[in-house]
Amino acid sequence: MREVVDILRQKGHEVVVVAPEVTMRIKPSETFVMKMYPVPYTKEDLKKEFQAFFHFSFEQGSFLERFVKAYQGIKRITNFGVSSCGHLLQNKELIRYLEESKFDAVFTDPVLLCGAILAKHLSLPAVYFLRGIPCGLDFEATQCPRPPSYVPRGFTQLTDRMTFLQRVKNLLHDIPDTFLCDFAFEPYSKLASEFLQQDVTVQDLLRQGSVWLLRSEFVLEYPRPLMPNIIPIGGVNCAHKELPQEFEAMVNASGEHGIVVFSLGSMVSEIPMKKAMEIAEALGTVPQTVFWRYTGKAPPNLPSNVKLVKWLPQNDLLAHPKTRAFITHGGSHGVYEGICNAVPMVLMPLFGDQMDNAKRVESRGAGLTLNILEMTSNDISTALKAVINEKKYKENIQRLSDLHLDRPIHPLDLAVHWVEFVMRHKGAPHLRPAAHDLNWVQYHSLDVIAFLAAVTLLSLFISFKCCLCCCRRWVAGTPQGFIYLPPPPDAPGTWTLLP
Amino acid sequence: MREVVDILRQKGHEVVVVAPEVTMRIKPSETFVMKMYPVPYTKEDLKKEFQAFFHFSFEQGSFLERFVKAYQGIKRITNFGVSSCGHLLQNKELIRYLEESKFDAVFTDPVLLCGAILAKHLSLPAVYFLRGIPCGLDFEATQCPRPPSYVPRGFTQLTDRMTFLQRVKNLLHDIPDTFLCDFAFEPYSKLASEFLQQDVTVQDLLRQGSVWLLRSEFVLEYPRPLMPNIIPIGGVNCAHKELPQEFEAMVNASGEHGIVVFSLGSMVSEIPMKKAMEIAEALGTVPQTVFWRYTGKAPPNLPSNVKLVKWLPQNDLLAHPKTRAFITHGGSHGVYEGICNAVPMVLMPLFGDQMDNAKRVESRGAGLTLNILEMTSNDISTALKAVINEKKYKENIQRLSDLHLDRPIHPLDLAVHWVEFVMRHKGAPHLRPAAHDLNWVQYHSLDVIAFLAAVTLLSLFISFKCCLCCCRRWVAGTPQGFIYLPPPPDAPGTWTLLP
Repeated sequence: MREVVDILRQKGHEVVVVAPEVTMRIKPSETFVMKMYPVPYTKEDLKKEFQAFFHFSFEQGSFLERFVKAYQGIKRITNFGVSSCGHLLQNKELIRYLEESKFDAVFTDPVLLCGAILAKHLSLPAVYFLRGIPCGLDFEATQCPRPPSYVPRGFTQLTDRMTFLQRVKNLLHDIPDTFLCDFAFEPYSKLASEFLQQDVTVQDLLRQGSVWLLRSEFVLEYPRPLMPNIIPIGGVNCAHKELPQEFEAMVNASGEHGIVVFSLGSMVSEIPMKKAMEIAEALGTVPQTVFWRYTGKAPPNLPSNVKLVKWLPQNDLLAHPKTRAFITHGGSHGVYEGICNAVPMVLMPLFGDQMDNAKRVESRGAGLTLNILEMTSNDISTALKAVINEKKYKENIQRLSDLHLDRPIHPLDLAVHWVEFVMRHKGAPHLRPAAHDLNWVQYHSLDVIAFLAAVTLLSLFISFKCCLCCCRRWVAGTPQGFIYLPPPPDAPGTWTLLP
Repeated sequence: MREVVDILRQKGHEVVVVAPEVTMRIKPSETFVMKMYPVPYTKEDLKKEFQAFFHFSFEQGSFLERFVKAYQGIKRITNFGVSSCGHLLQNKELIRYLEESKFDAVFTDPVLLCGAILAKHLSLPAVYFLRGIPCGLDFEATQCPRPPSYVPRGFTQLTDRMTFLQRVKNLLHDIPDTFLCDFAFEPYSKLASEFLQQDVTVQDLLRQGSVWLLRSEFVLEYPRPLMPNIIPIGGVNCAHKELPQEFEAMVNASGEHGIVVFSLGSMVSEIPMKKAMEIAEALGTVPQTVFWRYTGKAPPNLPSNVKLVKWLPQNDLLAHPKTRAFITHGGSHGVYEGICNAVPMVLMPLFGDQMDNAKRVESRGAGLTLNILEMTSNDISTALKAVINEKKYKENIQRLSDLHLDRPIHPLDLAVHWVEFVMRHKGAPHLRPAAHDLNWVQYHSLDVIAFLAAVTLLSLFISFKCCLCCCRRWVAGTPQGFIYLPPPPDAPGTWTLLP
């Protein structure tokens, strides 16, 4: 979102960022005014919780154990968001400031519903900027159809081409969605209902979105229906800056073999030592120089071709012509940077949408996925050598990259256009489908179908009754125990009464 | 399409236009190479048929009479297209030339399927440029969902907000579609099957479209689902040139009251004299100067403020600040010119999609629709005065215009981009939904639902049988004529056998 905000500022808009005092990412900037509010937790609490959650990705366990742990982890992390939102809404001074300021629009990621609550309170149009919302809440809120026969559900690791049993799995996946997401989203509905003093559902909050800027597009995503107010801006994050000199020098020193970029994302900085040693061993088997973003304790078996760095300019390194492969956890940002720079990937997905992203890259032949729990040093080495040395991976990612970059307008400009559009026109009501005003039965035309079925049955019944009546009248004219024989061809019109 | 072709030429592409020797519109140009082929009819035949068809729009008659006449008219006009296509495919010299030329793509309106047949024969990707295809064939071919509950069908004059009975009508409208369009499209399927020497359906031909450039957008159209390869380019035709001096002078001479632009489209040049006189009478009641594009005999009661012209620069006149209203038949080109120039409209739809276009403008409060058969001189005068003098019409069309023109890229550039995209990448396979590989039952998950229902019923049946079995065994231990009473609270575990 930061890049969009920067351009909005360049275009002369004033941007106020509302954020809790404790966050993992949001930092003050000259681009915007920052309004912070106190929250009852520290950065250490937040970090600890995230670390614990990510650590759990490396732990073995039964499905049920892992499910329960994931649930608990997500629940605890969600609680930070809910608590933060509660403290924002109770912060009378800040709310008064927001009420008194004349804003044109709210720009927010709807996965945390606090921005949507504020938009409703301030009666402002909202532009949503998102990767997606679990449980298909975004599809429901935009009234966007998603036939389960070829639109794979999130977290299923299915593609758009499914076998019969995969289609069964995909359809069944919708059932728990109706209640599984409640624990994460219902607290916001409660907060909103209290704050706005009216009954507000999660869908009420989501449906406010005038325009949905979706960080996705159809080189990575499987083609599926869209609504006119869903604007795909996948690749919005992929803008090049200069590569810092220290990195430029190191890359150039890598010789003809070039480099490999390795990062499991800025949220995961440490991994269990055993896993780290396995990875280190594997990285030693390739002639490339490997830049490994890692803040944990260096594994003792670190080979000489591996450079541990606390931070790396990922996108700019990927853009370097000497880059041969990208080892990534499969976060959507990283995957799009891999695509736009045409670097084949080895994917080690950890959680969330990362498995699905990895599946998409792999199903396009542009990378290989490893199971982080089960992978051995040998697996990593084999996969890495394959994506570096087998031509098809580079060819496939190059094809995806060419398609991705061949667009009439840069996704960043598109995003800015739509934010300004909503500001200028106080929303985008002309893009709001009338489906929002129908209930489930009406939307699916079930009332119409029932009505037509009733009319058809009634007509059939009446026709049948009439026929029966006619037959009876006819039969009534026949003495009991006798039947009529139709006329013979030589004497038409003469019916014979037979006993 | 001409404007897209012009820009493609400017960008250095070579364009070959394949057209019959006899057409209503296509003229040679320096922009493209023209390849013509002989057809067994004359321009007079074609003109006569179109005139007869348009004339029929002004004739009164019962629904059945009008339906039969419309059917016959469309059938005769369709026959010209089929005959022309047959003669193209039999033209060995031209086909050989096309085969030997190294084209990158076919650019065609799929409503005449000949271009699609050629694309299939030449194994070239196709870009479709269209207003729509009757009977929802375009929705079917793109696998685009269109819930009948809020997506009004063509030719129904329904909006996206329907009453129960309107929803019934809309749903029922799909039923005849499955066979009603056959008469117009099946001949192409026959031609294709013979020419390509394989069984080819209309859907096979349509599904080839890599990108569908749809001359529509959501200021005029009601918001509905899209597929990623459907690119709305409504307003593509609305580009300004200079207003010719003669017109500029006449417009400036109109004084403070300004002008009204009146055209029933380039296809309708003559109307019955009685109707023309009624219209003329009405036009005399407004103080504006009216430019009426009309090639028929001038009505004797023509008022002095009405200027009959054989041709007028419609879009450039509409763009003039002195233009107060636009009387139009509601063709999509004219309606978009009305929208982009923010001129309120009086709509006199004649046939085809014009009734639907008129309904859309009227439902947005940007114009008034008249029934061309029933309208009196007074109706015309009242409607014209209303759109000129009542502020709301101008305000509404201005709002639509502002929304329409606020776009990140001009639709003409968007159209050119996608034609070039398909040329560069030999199609757009990444935008093709996997739904194309599913049959109707699979697409709607009916097999999955049947399977799940069967599994559920079987489980219920087995559970029921097991229960029954247990009960029987328990009952079998009870002597006949006796029942067990459950234990009293003071003696748990002791069941009493009662006669």
